[in-house]
Amino acid sequence: MERIFNFSAGPATLPQEVLELARDELANWHGCGMSVMEMSHRGKEYMGIQAEAEADLRELMGIPANYKVLFLQGGASSQFAMVPMNLLRGKASADYLNTGEWSKKAIKEAKKYCTVNVVASSEDKNFSYAPAQEAWKLDPNAAYVHYTPNETIGGVEIFWTPQTRDVPLVADMSSTILSRPIDVSKFGLIYAGAQKNIGPAGLTLVIVRDDLLGQTISGTPTMFDYKTHAENESMYNTPPTYAIYIAGLVFKMLKAKGGLAAMEKANRAKAQLLYDALDTSSFFNSPVAPENRSLMNIPFTLKDAACDDEFLKDAKGRSMVQLKGHRSVGGMRASIYNAMPIEGVQTLVNLMKDFEKKHG
Amino acid sequence: MERIFNFSAGPATLPQEVLELARDELANWHGCGMSVMEMSHRGKEYMGIQAEAEADLRELMGIPANYKVLFLQGGASSQFAMVPMNLLRGKASADYLNTGEWSKKAIKEAKKYCTVNVVASSEDKNFSYAPAQEAWKLDPNAAYVHYTPNETIGGVEIFWTPQTRDVPLVADMSSTILSRPIDVSKFGLIYAGAQKNIGPAGLTLVIVRDDLLGQTISGTPTMFDYKTHAENESMYNTPPTYAIYIAGLVFKMLKAKGGLAAMEKANRAKAQLLYDALDTSSFFNSPVAPENRSLMNIPFTLKDAACDDEFLKDAKGRSMVQLKGHRSVGGMRASIYNAMPIEGVQTLVNLMKDFEKKHG
Repeated sequence: MERIFNFSAGPATLPQEVLELARDELANWHGCGMSVMEMSHRGKEYMGIQAEAEADLRELMGIPANYKVLFLQGGASSQFAMVPMNLLRGKASADYLNTGEWSKKAIKEAKKYCTVNVVASSEDKNFSYAPAQEAWKLDPNAAYVHYTPNETIGGVEIFWTPQTRDVPLVADMSSTILSRPIDVSKFGLIYAGAQKNIGPAGLTLVIVRDDLLGQTISGTPTMFDYKTHAENESMYNTPPTYAIYIAGLVFKMLKAKGGLAAMEKANRAKAQLLYDALDTSSFFNSPVAPENRSLMNIPFTLKDAACDDEFLKDAKGRSMVQLKGHRSVGGMRASIYNAMPIEGVQTLVNLMKDFEKKHG
Repeated sequence: MERIFNFSAGPATLPQEVLELARDELANWHGCGMSVMEMSHRGKEYMGIQAEAEADLRELMGIPANYKVLFLQGGASSQFAMVPMNLLRGKASADYLNTGEWSKKAIKEAKKYCTVNVVASSEDKNFSYAPAQEAWKLDPNAAYVHYTPNETIGGVEIFWTPQTRDVPLVADMSSTILSRPIDVSKFGLIYAGAQKNIGPAGLTLVIVRDDLLGQTISGTPTMFDYKTHAENESMYNTPPTYAIYIAGLVFKMLKAKGGLAAMEKANRAKAQLLYDALDTSSFFNSPVAPENRSLMNIPFTLKDAACDDEFLKDAKGRSMVQLKGHRSVGGMRASIYNAMPIEGVQTLVNLMKDFEKKHG
C-alpha cells in the first residue's frame, strides 16, 4: 500500500520527507558508522544533534534567552504533577481553566498537591467552547494559572493569550505547539507531548522561565525537578536521543518551509476547507463554537450516528484512517497537524460530499 | 565509513540486522502506509506490536504470570524514586547494597523517602568487588532489598542471587538484563533502562510481582504509580511506541539466536577473550576482583596513564570508538553488550597486543 492519510490525534502523521531522511540515515548517520540510536549521549555526534535541535526550536518559536528548553520524558501526564511540584513555590493554591478532558486530568492531578481554583469551566455545554477571559475568576494569590489552549479531544482552541498579571501562565500546548506563532514571553511555562507536531512519542518538551526553577515541594523525585534537567542541559540522565533527533529533523523542515507563520497559513487553509464543508452541509455538524474551532483537531458528527461505521469504512477505502471520534464527543475527529497535507483534507471533504449525496 | 565497533556503555551498539530491518520498514511498516512512529497507540497495528514485544520478552526471560511487564519512561533514574514510593508499603526503611556509582545514586534518592540501611559496601576498595552475602547486614523488617547486579561504571557483576527470605529483592538490571538467563521468580521487582541490551534510550522496563502493587506513599505522582501502568497495559498515556517497537525487534532476534542461554555463551566467550588478554599482559590491568568481572562492562587501565590518549587514537584508527573509561575509574572501558560482535573484541585485543609491543 502507498502512503495513507492518517488522521490520528497522536501519535500522528509525520512529514514524509522527515521519515525518508530518517530511513536513509537510520543504519549509518552521516557516514559515521553507527545509528543515532547507538550514539552515546555524551559523544560529540549526538551532543551536536541535540544542540542543533534546541537552537532550531529556539529560532522557530522565538524563545527568549531567559527560558530553558528541556527535553524530557513521561508525556503531558507527567507534567500534570511536575507543574504543581515545581511551581507552587510555597503557595497553597493554583488557578486552572477547565475546557475539557485534558484540563480535567491536569486538575485532578494538581489536587494531590494544592488547592485548585477552577477559574471557569465549559462543562455546562459538554466542553464545546472556551469561557471568555471576562468570566475567569482569577485569584491574585494563585501560584500559577494553568490552561489548555487546544483540547485535543473536544477540538476547542483558544486563540488569545490569557492575561494573568504577575501570576505565571502555564499552558499544555501538546496539540497546538508549532502550529502557529505564539509569544513565549507571555508564558511562565509551556509543555507539550511530542507525538503531535514535534516528533515521536516518548519525548516531552518543556519551555520554562528560569526564575521559576528551584523551589520544588518536599518529596519531589529528582527526575521531576525541572532544575535537575535545566542545570544539565537535559542530560542529567540519558535523554530519549532518537526521538530528539527526529524532532530536530522536524524543526529543520519547519524552518525550511518558512517557519511558524507559514505553518499557520497552511493550517488555516486546511482547517477552513474542512469547516466550510461542515458549515455548508446539512448532514455533518461541528459541535464547537465558531470562535473556538481548533486548527488541529476537528470533531464532527453525522446526522445519523448509525452511519458512523459506514463512513469509517468508506474512509478506509479511500486510504484515510483514524477518523473515529473520541467516545466523549462521538462521531468523527480529523486531526490535521502540520504534517497532514492539504490533499488529505481534500480527500476527506470529497468523501463527505459523496457520503452526504448518498445518505443526506 | 563502514560500520564501526562502538564500545559505548549506553546508548550502545544495536544488532546490525535490527537496524537494517528498522530502516527497511521505517517509512512504511509492513505495507500499511505509515511509519510505526505515526501509529496511534490505540490502533490495532501498534497494539499488536506491543503485545508481541511483551510476549517475546516473557518467553525469553521466563517471566511468571504473576509478574507485570511495564514499558515505562524516565530511565533507571526515575526508578530510584519509583521503587521506594511504591514498595515501602507502610514500612520505614529499606536495605541497599552499595557496589558503586549507580548503587550510590539509588541510595541517595531513596533517602528522600525512607531510612536506608546499607547492608554492605565495597567503597573501601574503590568499588572493585562485591561484598559476599555473608557480609550483608540484612534487616528482616526492611521493605525491600535493592542491589545493582552489574555496575556499568565499575564493571562489577554479581553472578549469584542474593537470599533475602521474605523481603522482596529489587534489582537495577540496566546493564545486565538479557545477557544471561535469570530466575525472575527470585525477584520482587526488576528494572532496566533500555539503552544497553534492550533498545533505544527513552524506554524503561519494569518487571514487578503483582502483589507488590497499589500501596504508594502519599504524594506519589499518578505516573510514578506502577499500578497506573499495570492496570492499563502500559497505555495509561502514550507509551514510547517507537522504542518499544525496536525493543520488540531485538527480542525477536534474541529468540531466533537461541535465547538467553545462547547469549550467555557468546557473552562469556567475548569477555573471556578480553580478560585473557588483560591477564596475560604486563601493560594492561583489570581493577576488578576476578569473581566479579562483568560480562558486559570491562574497565582496564594502561601501565602509564599518559598513553591513554594515544591508545584511544589508535583505537579510532581501527574503527573502535567510546573506549574512554569513566573518570571515577580512569583508563579504558569496553562495553560489550549482546550486540557487540566477537570481531569487535578481537579487534580490540589485537590493538592491545600491538600497543603493548610498542610501549610495554
